[in-house]
Amino acid sequence: MNPLEIPEIVIKRLPLYLRALNSLAAQGQTVTSSQEMGEKLGISSTQIRKDLSYFGEFGKQGTGYDIGYLQNQLQQILQVSQRWNVALIGAGDLGRAILRYSGFEDGGFTIAAVLDKDKQKIGRQVGKLHVADIATLSQVLDRHGIQIAILAVPASEAQEVADALVKGGVRAILSYAPVSLQLPAHVQVHYIDPVIGLQGMTYYLSPEQLPV
Amino acid sequence: MNPLEIPEIVIKRLPLYLRALNSLAAQGQTVTSSQEMGEKLGISSTQIRKDLSYFGEFGKQGTGYDIGYLQNQLQQILQVSQRWNVALIGAGDLGRAILRYSGFEDGGFTIAAVLDKDKQKIGRQVGKLHVADIATLSQVLDRHGIQIAILAVPASEAQEVADALVKGGVRAILSYAPVSLQLPAHVQVHYIDPVIGLQGMTYYLSPEQLPV
Repeated sequence: MNPLEIPEIVIKRLPLYLRALNSLAAQGQTVTSSQEMGEKLGISSTQIRKDLSYFGEFGKQGTGYDIGYLQNQLQQILQVSQRWNVALIGAGDLGRAILRYSGFEDGGFTIAAVLDKDKQKIGRQVGKLHVADIATLSQVLDRHGIQIAILAVPASEAQEVADALVKGGVRAILSYAPVSLQLPAHVQVHYIDPVIGLQGMTYYLSPEQLPV
Repeated sequence: MNPLEIPEIVIKRLPLYLRALNSLAAQGQTVTSSQEMGEKLGISSTQIRKDLSYFGEFGKQGTGYDIGYLQNQLQQILQVSQRWNVALIGAGDLGRAILRYSGFEDGGFTIAAVLDKDKQKIGRQVGKLHVADIATLSQVLDRHGIQIAILAVPASEAQEVADALVKGGVRAILSYAPVSLQLPAHVQVHYIDPVIGLQGMTYYLSPEQLPV
């Protein structure tokens, strides 16, 4: 099946399945079921089986999924069995919190560079990296073969930085800035916005429980 | 229509529509179209019209949507026309970055309390708030009528804190910790995990562009 014919919503669930499998494997488990994964994730087992069936037959009736095999398959499908270098733009509180996040390496990503425009921050060490001058962006992207960037800059600067990233060859942007970026069609974007997450939940809070 | 019969995926897109409308309104615009919103969001205009049609008739053929009216309607649907008090758990780099995020108030949320278990952080001022002792969680939740919490604690502590939140009456959790929480069915959860966001994009990066 043409990769682009698989619904995007299915693709976006695969990382959740992979995370559940990683967590089961970390507990020493070797076999799981769509029921067990579903309970862990709050997704129905039917949905999980249907999503996975786009990519082949991963489990046997009655014996469930081999965790290691399914982890490996999902990593290949998501193209994270190899490692991607990532540029982090912004070395403020948020950038530092992102750098401290421990899941990147296991997920297939290495934060290879952190850049900022603030002269106070340039040259300073954060984690294992030294903050580079955003003015050197295109050289930094080239040097590390970077196609993926994380945007941790104020909303007012996000579009300008995104434009520079795209010009430098970046094809996927994870943005923490609360603005919709205008990007060419070939560039992927994923927004991390706490308000979007919160507003997607308040709908389900029953009216009798509304605060006065 | 029963609110629970509307597909969750539709509900999860409404906050994006609201954000796009807010951004157009901020530019002084009063009328928009599903085409314009779609271009801003990278979602097809057909999808937007279909999603909105679950809730009524918001636009007229040829004249488009009245932005103020549609903002108001979406806020009511999402139950964010009133304000929700929110507790932030964790006052480290990440907690401080979240506190500095400017979009909560406009989105319908007030961070009413920040709590931590670290004696070094308790009592310290962050933004307009003083960090409270996590040991006083249930009193803090009661005092502010809090049903929504943001979890910015290490993965190893997330489940324990989530259990305490639920015990204290919290019904919606936005979690930055990279673990799947085990929660009762009546509790909403939304995960903010950069790796999930990144892995949802690498699928679309074409193989010929893989790093060597």
